[in-house]
Amino acid sequence: MSGPLDGVKVVDLTTVVVGPIATRTLADQGADVIKVEAPGGDILRFLAAGSRTPAMSGKFINFNRNKRSIGLDIKQPEGLAAMKALLAKADVFVTNVRPQGLERAGLDFASLHALNPRLIHCGIVAFGRGGRYYNRPAYDPIIQSLSGVAGTFHRATGEPRFVPMVMTDHTTGLIAAQSVGFALYRRERTGVGEAIEVPMFENMASFVMSEHLGAATFDPPEGPSGDARLLSPDYRPLPTKDGYLTVRPNNNRQAFAFFDAIGKPELKDDPRFRTALTRTQNAPDYFRVQVEALATKTTAEWLEIFAKADVPAGPYNEIDDLLEDPHLAEVGFWHFDDHPTEGRIRRTKVPNSFSGGMREEVLPAPQLGRHTREVLRELGHDEAAIEAMLASGAAFEGLS
Amino acid sequence: MSGPLDGVKVVDLTTVVVGPIATRTLADQGADVIKVEAPGGDILRFLAAGSRTPAMSGKFINFNRNKRSIGLDIKQPEGLAAMKALLAKADVFVTNVRPQGLERAGLDFASLHALNPRLIHCGIVAFGRGGRYYNRPAYDPIIQSLSGVAGTFHRATGEPRFVPMVMTDHTTGLIAAQSVGFALYRRERTGVGEAIEVPMFENMASFVMSEHLGAATFDPPEGPSGDARLLSPDYRPLPTKDGYLTVRPNNNRQAFAFFDAIGKPELKDDPRFRTALTRTQNAPDYFRVQVEALATKTTAEWLEIFAKADVPAGPYNEIDDLLEDPHLAEVGFWHFDDHPTEGRIRRTKVPNSFSGGMREEVLPAPQLGRHTREVLRELGHDEAAIEAMLASGAAFEGLS
Repeated sequence: MSGPLDGVKVVDLTTVVVGPIATRTLADQGADVIKVEAPGGDILRFLAAGSRTPAMSGKFINFNRNKRSIGLDIKQPEGLAAMKALLAKADVFVTNVRPQGLERAGLDFASLHALNPRLIHCGIVAFGRGGRYYNRPAYDPIIQSLSGVAGTFHRATGEPRFVPMVMTDHTTGLIAAQSVGFALYRRERTGVGEAIEVPMFENMASFVMSEHLGAATFDPPEGPSGDARLLSPDYRPLPTKDGYLTVRPNNNRQAFAFFDAIGKPELKDDPRFRTALTRTQNAPDYFRVQVEALATKTTAEWLEIFAKADVPAGPYNEIDDLLEDPHLAEVGFWHFDDHPTEGRIRRTKVPNSFSGGMREEVLPAPQLGRHTREVLRELGHDEAAIEAMLASGAAFEGLS
Repeated sequence: MSGPLDGVKVVDLTTVVVGPIATRTLADQGADVIKVEAPGGDILRFLAAGSRTPAMSGKFINFNRNKRSIGLDIKQPEGLAAMKALLAKADVFVTNVRPQGLERAGLDFASLHALNPRLIHCGIVAFGRGGRYYNRPAYDPIIQSLSGVAGTFHRATGEPRFVPMVMTDHTTGLIAAQSVGFALYRRERTGVGEAIEVPMFENMASFVMSEHLGAATFDPPEGPSGDARLLSPDYRPLPTKDGYLTVRPNNNRQAFAFFDAIGKPELKDDPRFRTALTRTQNAPDYFRVQVEALATKTTAEWLEIFAKADVPAGPYNEIDDLLEDPHLAEVGFWHFDDHPTEGRIRRTKVPNSFSGGMREEVLPAPQLGRHTREVLRELGHDEAAIEAMLASGAAFEGLS
């Protein structure tokens, strides 16, 4: 059995999260991903506390399973030549190097299309072509700041905040993998590759505004932007007597069952709460009813009551609770691997299942340049040529 | 010109956001998406304030462009027969109906595979097969509560919170579209469809834990879970003299340029801040330095200083600022359409570009059942059969 992308060769010139999650997604579904690292390696190797060996942070390990690492200095002619040799045989190139840098190195779509017309060239950029920020660098928080992600908290709580994840990197990377899949499908029909541009800012602005354009969808606006339900200060797990709980009575049946369950059946006739539309219009009031009710019983008591009344509700997990969550345990979410250099490690399951077959072999996240020799051999370099590249630094293994 | 999914026929039995963003993504890239709506229609039609006509909320419009709507009551035999006739000719079925409901209706993968072996059956579920929550319903906040999304805020600020977006719906929907692309690619090679299960909880737990497993990646753990940089209370757009700004000095060059720019060159020799690793370990201190510095000048002053010093930084946009953002204006992010029933509306651009061709025709988000007759005709129903279905309510147009 193998995954849907079995046989797809991906050359991965990306760092941090936006590119590595894109290529991990492709790798998890069966692609052969070769991660090309510059001297010093992907900075994510260092960007988190708690590694066992240098340059192997937990975060790096999580985002780089199922890949092989080759160390190449593409600023040296032999390094760049090896890079191009890899690309000549590849199906997909994923990169988050800025467009001007790619052009300087001859790694832009036009140059590579001439070398390999079947190559799909996926450029993840901070900002799309045609706008004033094109070619500017960015990190996740800058995109959260610009794209309205932080702005949603401003509306909800009075102060802008980031999501405490590299959410715009992570989401855009998933979209990049999605786009590569679409282009692979088209290539089966046309026989030729194409260039894809995946801009972080535009993707996240689209994410935020699809949700929060609201009444400003209409021109002139029918009211303020924003989905009032989501922007309520009380839109959060709500405190119970002994913890937190989330309840979501959405349609009429659920809302009326909720009012009965909390002992306030009279609210079913309250004009503020009679329909999904009026509950949306009166979202802050509807949340206050929930806040006041939940404080009166324990989480377990409420979960039992809501289960009986068929009102959607669920417990709250802190980050570490996920390690022990019973549903996750039952679906085999956590795996333990013996990593060849890092010892016993915990790994998340690939969450999506494909009945046509899944990737079976799991490659451990690679140390920097662990596969440099192996990949150069696959390119047809003989041992002398490989040694020469290692001696000059055009290729390398490990930290220098 | 047409998009990479040109010619792909998608039957969409989904509601709210998780399914509709999946099928909008497929539609934006060229697929022919037929949205099958039950009597009363997708609840998202009502779940936001500020519509111009009934059942056409701004949020519904944003998530349902480029689709056609057929009203079918699949609880009636003729309605279900029409549904199966649609699926017999389709490439992809996307649904967020619970598995037990699909089985009852004979819309599970095994039944449909017998009818149409090329069909890709993408089931978006709240919880995956094999765990105790399988077949339970869920809405976005319940998944935010369970999957650690809310838990990241708890660690950062002391109180669990939701992202003020339907982030887990939205993200899982994007992943569902990604998975469909991978299966379409495989089908070109094997000739047969397959079942895909896309569980919200597992996908979001994977999202959160890939970022925050941290030192708990190792077994036994090398330290606490969590990425301390992202979980710092000061990880947010920072106040300046007259607004907010985001700065992200990540690598050594950027960090040292930042210390020079704020007039604290001595911090370059501070052991807390000398490397990416030590800056991660001392993230709260590093953020405090930023907080104190930024308060002393205006946003414009800092942006100019950081631009000159090549320190990654960016302005902060409130939600409504996106409507006027200069980069978004320059890339043509906002379009204005004359919607046939809703008047002039604002629409976001499809953010990703494919050099092999993009979908050109934009279909307006449909009123409920607007294409019922058209789609039934395409199935070969004659006018008498269509009228009979409309009379019995097996098919319908509009709200009843």
